[in-house]
Amino acid sequence: MYNYPSRLLEQAVREFARLPGVGNKTALRLVLHLLKQPKEEVEIFGQTLIQLRNNIKHCKVCRNISDTETCQICSSPSRDHQTICVVENISDVMSIENTQQYSGVYHVLGGIISPMEGVGPADLFIDALDERVSSDNIKEVILALSTTMEGDTTNFYIYKRLSKYPVKITTLSRGVAIGDELEYADEITLGRSIINRTLFITTLKNQKQEKK
Amino acid sequence: MYNYPSRLLEQAVREFARLPGVGNKTALRLVLHLLKQPKEEVEIFGQTLIQLRNNIKHCKVCRNISDTETCQICSSPSRDHQTICVVENISDVMSIENTQQYSGVYHVLGGIISPMEGVGPADLFIDALDERVSSDNIKEVILALSTTMEGDTTNFYIYKRLSKYPVKITTLSRGVAIGDELEYADEITLGRSIINRTLFITTLKNQKQEKK
Repeated sequence: MYNYPSRLLEQAVREFARLPGVGNKTALRLVLHLLKQPKEEVEIFGQTLIQLRNNIKHCKVCRNISDTETCQICSSPSRDHQTICVVENISDVMSIENTQQYSGVYHVLGGIISPMEGVGPADLFIDALDERVSSDNIKEVILALSTTMEGDTTNFYIYKRLSKYPVKITTLSRGVAIGDELEYADEITLGRSIINRTLFITTLKNQKQEKK
Repeated sequence: MYNYPSRLLEQAVREFARLPGVGNKTALRLVLHLLKQPKEEVEIFGQTLIQLRNNIKHCKVCRNISDTETCQICSSPSRDHQTICVVENISDVMSIENTQQYSGVYHVLGGIISPMEGVGPADLFIDALDERVSSDNIKEVILALSTTMEGDTTNFYIYKRLSKYPVKITTLSRGVAIGDELEYADEITLGRSIINRTLFITTLKNQKQEKK
């Protein structure tokens, strides 16, 4: 491999190539793009990243990203504070918010239990969830983790921890995705969607609500 | 679309999403990745980009990127300074250097003539090429631009400009790529590779050289 024509260029390419999903070729393309931009804009880009990392806060209630001590969702009076949706990451919060179908609050674990990667319950934000459910007047906890073995393990662990409280524990419904054809759905998903079939009248109501 | 939970996060995502080939989803993924890294590393990332843009130089001879006034290639005594390879971008220099088959020097145009995008000959580094060929003792100019209409236009323009000098002007050979099957090659490429067929003994010599 030919050496980069400049040490500065090489450093910048290395830094970009450390990002997930960015290889050396893409990194070089991005760096060459930045070199064509005005100096002020690259300055802003670099400063934005540094400020982000140094100044960002996590909501002390739900651990969502926030500019303030308590995040917008946790401090909103129009949300249902008796329902907590437990998610793995901040991006899951954004995905669920985008559906506009949920008005409760969240609890961001910061990962899932994974013995392979050395992540145990103590590494996650589970104690705080326990505390929230015990002290606040919580009615329902929705477990919205991924359907992997790690996700199932984490679900089960949380379920056991919270079963001492009088709280309803639910999970997301699983089934054939909207728009998908049956023949392409995998057997487990299709099987689950038959077992957990819903009343047609409920589906009609949901569709009506979505159109609003 | 749901608002980002933090202004800092939103700004960082916007900055990343301005890079070519990076959409909002990828940008968010990259930003969340940076948030998990130690503060010092993100600081280095940001500073590297700013320093790159502020301190990088272009070689005064060939316009390749360089940390010094004259780049490594132009200042190397072991290169053939009588042969100039004309390329569009810095990444083309790197691609050709990686083949280890070229020992001449380069001339980076910084783009190609494109009336559609408002790029004329004056916007490129063509006057400097003219000057180099006129003053230095140049024997050959290799035109290594892309085979698009813009590339052909630029090739022709440079050819006309340089035809007043006693210099040999060549272009890269075009043909079926090594490893490609004939049935998948397009007609123009295949036709060109028949017209410009090479002596088998030359091909054998090339293969021998590549194995060294």
